Amino acid sequence: MDKKLIEPKLLKGFRDQLPNAMLQKKKMIAKLENTFESFGFAPIDTPVLEFTEILLGKGGEETDKQLYRFLDNGKRDVTMRYDLTVPLARFTAQHYNELGMPFKAYHIDKVWRGENTHRGRYREFYQCDFDILGTSSNFSDVEIGSLIYTAIKNLIGSDDFVIRINNRKVLNALMQKLGIQDKTVEVLRVVDKIYKQSRDKVIDELNKKVGLSNEQIQEVLNFIDIKGSNSEILEKLETLFADFEYAKEGIENLKEFHSLFTAMGIPEKCYQFDLSIARGLDYYTGTVFETMLLNLPELGSICSGGRYDNLAELYTTNKIPGVGASIGLDRLSDGLELDFSVSTPAEVLILNMDRNYKAEYLKIAQELRLANIKTELFTDDKKLDKQLKYANRKGFKFVLMLGSNEFENNLVTLKDMSNGALEKVQRDKLLDFFSK
Amino acid sequence: MDKKLIEPKLLKGFRDQLPNAMLQKKKMIAKLENTFESFGFAPIDTPVLEFTEILLGKGGEETDKQLYRFLDNGKRDVTMRYDLTVPLARFTAQHYNELGMPFKAYHIDKVWRGENTHRGRYREFYQCDFDILGTSSNFSDVEIGSLIYTAIKNLIGSDDFVIRINNRKVLNALMQKLGIQDKTVEVLRVVDKIYKQSRDKVIDELNKKVGLSNEQIQEVLNFIDIKGSNSEILEKLETLFADFEYAKEGIENLKEFHSLFTAMGIPEKCYQFDLSIARGLDYYTGTVFETMLLNLPELGSICSGGRYDNLAELYTTNKIPGVGASIGLDRLSDGLELDFSVSTPAEVLILNMDRNYKAEYLKIAQELRLANIKTELFTDDKKLDKQLKYANRKGFKFVLMLGSNEFENNLVTLKDMSNGALEKVQRDKLLDFFSK
Repeated sequence: MDKKLIEPKLLKGFRDQLPNAMLQKKKMIAKLENTFESFGFAPIDTPVLEFTEILLGKGGEETDKQLYRFLDNGKRDVTMRYDLTVPLARFTAQHYNELGMPFKAYHIDKVWRGENTHRGRYREFYQCDFDILGTSSNFSDVEIGSLIYTAIKNLIGSDDFVIRINNRKVLNALMQKLGIQDKTVEVLRVVDKIYKQSRDKVIDELNKKVGLSNEQIQEVLNFIDIKGSNSEILEKLETLFADFEYAKEGIENLKEFHSLFTAMGIPEKCYQFDLSIARGLDYYTGTVFETMLLNLPELGSICSGGRYDNLAELYTTNKIPGVGASIGLDRLSDGLELDFSVSTPAEVLILNMDRNYKAEYLKIAQELRLANIKTELFTDDKKLDKQLKYANRKGFKFVLMLGSNEFENNLVTLKDMSNGALEKVQRDKLLDFFSK
Repeated sequence: MDKKLIEPKLLKGFRDQLPNAMLQKKKMIAKLENTFESFGFAPIDTPVLEFTEILLGKGGEETDKQLYRFLDNGKRDVTMRYDLTVPLARFTAQHYNELGMPFKAYHIDKVWRGENTHRGRYREFYQCDFDILGTSSNFSDVEIGSLIYTAIKNLIGSDDFVIRINNRKVLNALMQKLGIQDKTVEVLRVVDKIYKQSRDKVIDELNKKVGLSNEQIQEVLNFIDIKGSNSEILEKLETLFADFEYAKEGIENLKEFHSLFTAMGIPEKCYQFDLSIARGLDYYTGTVFETMLLNLPELGSICSGGRYDNLAELYTTNKIPGVGASIGLDRLSDGLELDFSVSTPAEVLILNMDRNYKAEYLKIAQELRLANIKTELFTDDKKLDKQLKYANRKGFKFVLMLGSNEFENNLVTLKDMSNGALEKVQRDKLLDFFSK
């Protein structure tokens, strides 16, 4: 072969998913889909490519630099989606009348950003968004909170996580009270970094960059330092804003969270009011959420979101308020201890021991599959030890061996791959064996 | 509002999926995934973007013109995948040792082609491929045939379809017998159009373009005109090629299909040997498949494929033979009569009748969801008639109504949306009602 080969390689920041990883990813996605649908959230899909004017300038300067943007063959300026929120805004504006409000939707799929790949970031990754659109009721915020709780619990299989909840209206009230409401966005951007940066740096930035006085800074810090149980925080807020009408709605919203979460039996360890949570984006106007795994706080928030007043204002005059959140699937799957030792969806492998019995192998496979036992049939002509090695490597639970001896005696030899034990089972008792 | 709005619109050939369509598409995909996994085929994924040199020139001139190809921000020449076969070849070459042969994989996802959108073609559409790689055994071809049968049957819910099967080795034997083996590719390309073009045009092309004599053309036509039951066709082939060793393997392969399909109880109406099927691509070297719906032959083949000798020869010196097929999901979903009247995954809607009972509504929703009854809670503050209109429009099966009257008497009022009937059920008998 003189022909020059093309090197099979991937773009930086892009990944293949081999069966072992893909099986785990699909399991996670299936759990999320089931949870979303059990709450009545409906799946939607939008195109990977959009007109650039739909996406450009919506995610900030940083994001604009990372776009996969190009001219298509018809000289149209197009861009691959970099998140699922901007397409959702376009989608909702475009199909507003068809959809009917309120509209509960989820969308799990890939997005693309030409990010710096240094810190384990990928350029192709999943987002997983769920939103209730077209309503301002705080009851919807509570439903999203309850969905975050249920989804993360189903996903990680425990309640070792905490949803940190705040409300922008309460933060806005503080700004109003201190007379710095015109600086709200800048203040919250700095405050939002309190967990990531040193306290001194936050103080310094609030002073030099934002221009707050030392007294104002102290008041802000005192506020975000308020700690305690959820009811203690609610009490402190009521005391602090006793005569301040402007703060009332935000506090009422938080109180409703507390009473309804309590009624549903959501454990207190799983949600914590936290007045330091601002979520940098200007975007949010009410409830804000972050979610941390108790055993892996270093992963950062694995589910964040909040309430916004007007999702699609760039595309329509219809005012579309809503509340939603997004789960960081890739981050989470890096954090969970997933089992990558299995690379087959099937439990059972039927060996191809004797060419004369192909029809029988096919019939047994058919029988097991009809009984919902996922079964692979070894359809290559390899030696027995190679076939067993294959079974072991792919992670099958059981191997079925049938040669002339078995067929003559109406038996099946079953090998339990976890311990190597061999068992002979009557041919007509095979399904019974698996049903136990 | 003076601000100029951005018109929310889509690129030509691209589609949004609203909940009613997306629910149906996800159902189809779930059925396919379940069938593939029941056969032990494992899911894989590859990136949407590849280096252009991986994809360019692999799908023919026509495809090359339709590529979404551009320079990324790092000036790399990149292309969005236009099918799932070329990425599979690159993937298998790259991970050959990790995967372990034979390798059974499926991949269902979007691909992009800048096609002419006139004839209902889309530029973003799904492909659904399944393959057995790394084996030349005809047993694998039979397994793929059996998987096509099972997948289509599960998908359309009946056996009103026929898999047309041929073998390139038999066609090659004919070419050899007629002494036109050097013209095989051209002859098969013309013959492959016999169902789409007039017979006269095929004769004309075989004569003028390919340069066959009238006698040769007659022999080719006689051959592809051989009709009859599967066993009749096998008999005729054996007679025709009685002394022709070269035809033996192809005939044996077809005979094995017949005996094993018969053993599995696959009805004769569901598979038919058809010597006119060539599948235009040079690519195939053995078995070839096409699948037609009996009631919608005008859809063309909804599942096609075959055996190839060397999948990844452009990327590796490892020889990787295989057999596989691809289901035309978009074509099929256009052909099936899908129910687009439902746009919620949930069966039950709990109305928000009285603000005082929010906690109760949440608790009932939680209870139903835990019992696997998908339940939406109406979390907006609209009037009752609006809420009922919403329920009707989205296609819920049942609406739960609970006001103070119901709570005082420990009852739930259930509305059956199919007939409008109201029923009062004891609060603690609610789950029983749904379990029947």
